[in-house]
Amino acid sequence: MNTLKEISSLLKGELRGNPDIRIRGVNSLARAGETEITFLVKHDAEPSAIQAAALVVARDNPIEYPNLIYVDDPYLAFAKLLEYFHPARPFCTGVSDSARVHADARLGQNVRLGAFVEVGAAASIGDDTEIHSGCVVYPGAVIGRSCLIYANVVIREGVIIGDYCILHAGAVIGSDGFGFSRDPAGIPRKIPQKGKVIIGNHCEIGANTCIDRSTIEETRLEDHVKLDNLVQVGHNCRIGSGTTISALTGISGSVDVGRNVVMGGQVGIADHLRIADGVMIAGKTGVSGHIKKRGIIAGNPHMDLRGWRRMHALLRNLDDYFTRIRELEKRISELEAK
Amino acid sequence: MNTLKEISSLLKGELRGNPDIRIRGVNSLARAGETEITFLVKHDAEPSAIQAAALVVARDNPIEYPNLIYVDDPYLAFAKLLEYFHPARPFCTGVSDSARVHADARLGQNVRLGAFVEVGAAASIGDDTEIHSGCVVYPGAVIGRSCLIYANVVIREGVIIGDYCILHAGAVIGSDGFGFSRDPAGIPRKIPQKGKVIIGNHCEIGANTCIDRSTIEETRLEDHVKLDNLVQVGHNCRIGSGTTISALTGISGSVDVGRNVVMGGQVGIADHLRIADGVMIAGKTGVSGHIKKRGIIAGNPHMDLRGWRRMHALLRNLDDYFTRIRELEKRISELEAK
Amino acid sequence: MNTLKEISSLLKGELRGNPDIRIRGVNSLARAGETEITFLVKHDAEPSAIQAAALVVARDNPIEYPNLIYVDDPYLAFAKLLEYFHPARPFCTGVSDSARVHADARLGQNVRLGAFVEVGAAASIGDDTEIHSGCVVYPGAVIGRSCLIYANVVIREGVIIGDYCILHAGAVIGSDGFGFSRDPAGIPRKIPQKGKVIIGNHCEIGANTCIDRSTIEETRLEDHVKLDNLVQVGHNCRIGSGTTISALTGISGSVDVGRNVVMGGQVGIADHLRIADGVMIAGKTGVSGHIKKRGIIAGNPHMDLRGWRRMHALLRNLDDYFTRIRELEKRISELEAK
Repeated sequence: MNTLKEISSLLKGELRGNPDIRIRGVNSLARAGETEITFLVKHDAEPSAIQAAALVVARDNPIEYPNLIYVDDPYLAFAKLLEYFHPARPFCTGVSDSARVHADARLGQNVRLGAFVEVGAAASIGDDTEIHSGCVVYPGAVIGRSCLIYANVVIREGVIIGDYCILHAGAVIGSDGFGFSRDPAGIPRKIPQKGKVIIGNHCEIGANTCIDRSTIEETRLEDHVKLDNLVQVGHNCRIGSGTTISALTGISGSVDVGRNVVMGGQVGIADHLRIADGVMIAGKTGVSGHIKKRGIIAGNPHMDLRGWRRMHALLRNLDDYFTRIRELEKRISELEAK
Repeated sequence: MNTLKEISSLLKGELRGNPDIRIRGVNSLARAGETEITFLVKHDAEPSAIQAAALVVARDNPIEYPNLIYVDDPYLAFAKLLEYFHPARPFCTGVSDSARVHADARLGQNVRLGAFVEVGAAASIGDDTEIHSGCVVYPGAVIGRSCLIYANVVIREGVIIGDYCILHAGAVIGSDGFGFSRDPAGIPRKIPQKGKVIIGNHCEIGANTCIDRSTIEETRLEDHVKLDNLVQVGHNCRIGSGTTISALTGISGSVDVGRNVVMGGQVGIADHLRIADGVMIAGKTGVSGHIKKRGIIAGNPHMDLRGWRRMHALLRNLDDYFTRIRELEKRISELEAK
Repeated sequence: MNTLKEISSLLKGELRGNPDIRIRGVNSLARAGETEITFLVKHDAEPSAIQAAALVVARDNPIEYPNLIYVDDPYLAFAKLLEYFHPARPFCTGVSDSARVHADARLGQNVRLGAFVEVGAAASIGDDTEIHSGCVVYPGAVIGRSCLIYANVVIREGVIIGDYCILHAGAVIGSDGFGFSRDPAGIPRKIPQKGKVIIGNHCEIGANTCIDRSTIEETRLEDHVKLDNLVQVGHNCRIGSGTTISALTGISGSVDVGRNVVMGGQVGIADHLRIADGVMIAGKTGVSGHIKKRGIIAGNPHMDLRGWRRMHALLRNLDDYFTRIRELEKRISELEAK
């Protein structure tokens, strides 16, 4: 239990109301009760429907409410409150006696390994990293410090992961790129995939997401890249820092994605393309050419979002216009007959 | 070996033919031999091509065949025969001595755990539930009775699973929702995901399917929800009872899906949408707005299936109509010149 | 270190240049240094930008460079060099003492099992096959010889895998097909899935890819089928030999795919369709009817690639043509008024 004053100070906010009321927790706007705090991003909420003890709002929010904390970014303040009231606890304490760590592997200080984890020869795991049950770290893989790796993740040989990364359950890092060449008889023959995967700091990789290694160069995620679940990153790609990619998106081989790109779900990008910094790609877009400048794209084949919407609005009238063309033909034939 | 009479009685069917013939098993229509039974849903099959000892058909099926069992639903009767001739056997007997069950976990009666299963502190597993090799049940997770959980499934903390559920291999339940907020420098910062996932009774979750937890509220699957493989359910969604969702479909955050909705594969649904009860969504549909009433939708952006088909039929004539417009322009210019 | 002459002989190539120079390794065109060899598929490269000691090129490549090896297929020669300079080493030696192999399972000679592998009763694993940490081989599954199975793969009962196959991490073979029938109350009831999955020789299955078993017949991959990551193959499908399928593609139940078909990523194929030999399917295509002859298809609904491109080129002018129709209507009204 904290006073509202303490909470305000934690958020570096500006308090208006009763600094002494007690806050027991944080909850969603709809559910926060009389001893809970919540946050509000809308500027037109109806205060009478809110039960919360206090609201965290943006500094320019005109809402009237008994207890308010004004902050720059209510969403980030909410994140901070969630961490404060629901602190992440380590799931493991030390190295499970059922983990198999190769004698040549290097474990940093305070590394925690769950049950049935295997760490191969010459692998290296940084200080304070926690790896949950069933994960497999192949020989020679390198994992940085303060990472959190959920259960059943597979990290193949030649993978290098930075610091402060989160890998969700079932992710596979460093699987072979999908490279085949047909022999003279037309049979697909495997091109060996001997390259590395290099992941920067503060990246998050979703559950069951796959990142492929390439033949000989690197697949690279820069810092702060965030991948949702079930994403496929092909071999030899580079994903620029701060880029976020939603679920079920597939990025073919040798794609170069810029910084702070935002992709919706089920986007597909053909191989060897370049996507400029800051591009936004709507869900389900099929990208089949370079995207050279910032903007929002959609559709398959992709186009400017506005153009795509306009096109689909027009398409709803296609039947009507086709009728009008047939009508015009009749009318002009009549005129010509005169 | 059973007599046809016994089979008919098992199916609560009406027998026509020889009640004493012996049935050794069940097989598909194309493969059933002289000692096997099969089922027929079509009303126009050619009996001479069938080798089976007997057919299970709907009561109104006019087919002539030596041995017939009439039932209300041949497909469900087939399901019953499959279970009868190929009964599911438990893969595990008791708790493997290699499983790691926390001293504080609660295991019901006849819980069976495969090799290398980890069950965390304060987790609870109901009577008769079977969990296969390599599964990880995080601290505090709750699993109901008579569930069947295949290998390498991950069930995160705060997940509650009902009774009689089937989870296929590699599924991940309770992974973090994909929530980030960009800080003033534009860097995506994680919004902690501290909510629960609650799954009802009789649900089935496909292989490598992922269901995300939300920031603070719940992601909820009601009873009898069936998810295919590689499906993504975002944080804070509700999936209504009896809804079935095919492979590679992605449901964004905070989507409310009604009851008995049927989705094809690779459907995508944008966040915060509501889908009414009984809606059918064709494969590959991109849903970008609320679906307020029952119907069949398709396309991206989605539209009524009939309208979508009509539009694509018209589009095949687009080239022709454009030519006709240019033709009209010529003709009208000639008329105007006169 | 090898002489260029030795390398040329390994590749059965024709050497032009200095046979005695020493080659330390293979690298990409952009990165190969003075002691490395690389390959070149283009016919218009700029030699002055290349640092490599030698180039492997096609016999008809006119490039001028000090040291050249001419071969029939530079890409396959590159594959050979990659294997030569980066030989695959076994990750496991023998059977890990932490593996659980049922007393009734049959292990061939030189089978290598990683840590925490479970092999069920009556399962069979062929000579020289290597299975990595955390894999689960269910009772009765059969795996051929010289297979390489990466970590955390699940192979269900009734699965038969041929020789020389590679299964990437997290793949699930033999999960239940997605089959339900609604009972009179509208509740989806499971159709038991008791069939087999049969995989030929020299197949490669991507990370987290799922292949479903069927009710009673077989799901079958012929020889040399290559599946990328996160692919879904539905129950009762047949995939013809030499077919390659890119990531996130979903193939519904009972689809019959011919030989040497090439599918891009995120393709979707509706159930019970037949795809002819040699068909190429562009990424994101939605196939909703049989494809009866060789060709390239694209779009949703699918059409001939050329027709699809033409249609989208026309669509960019839709707004213009609609304007011209309205213009024509005005002009014809004026003419009619005269």
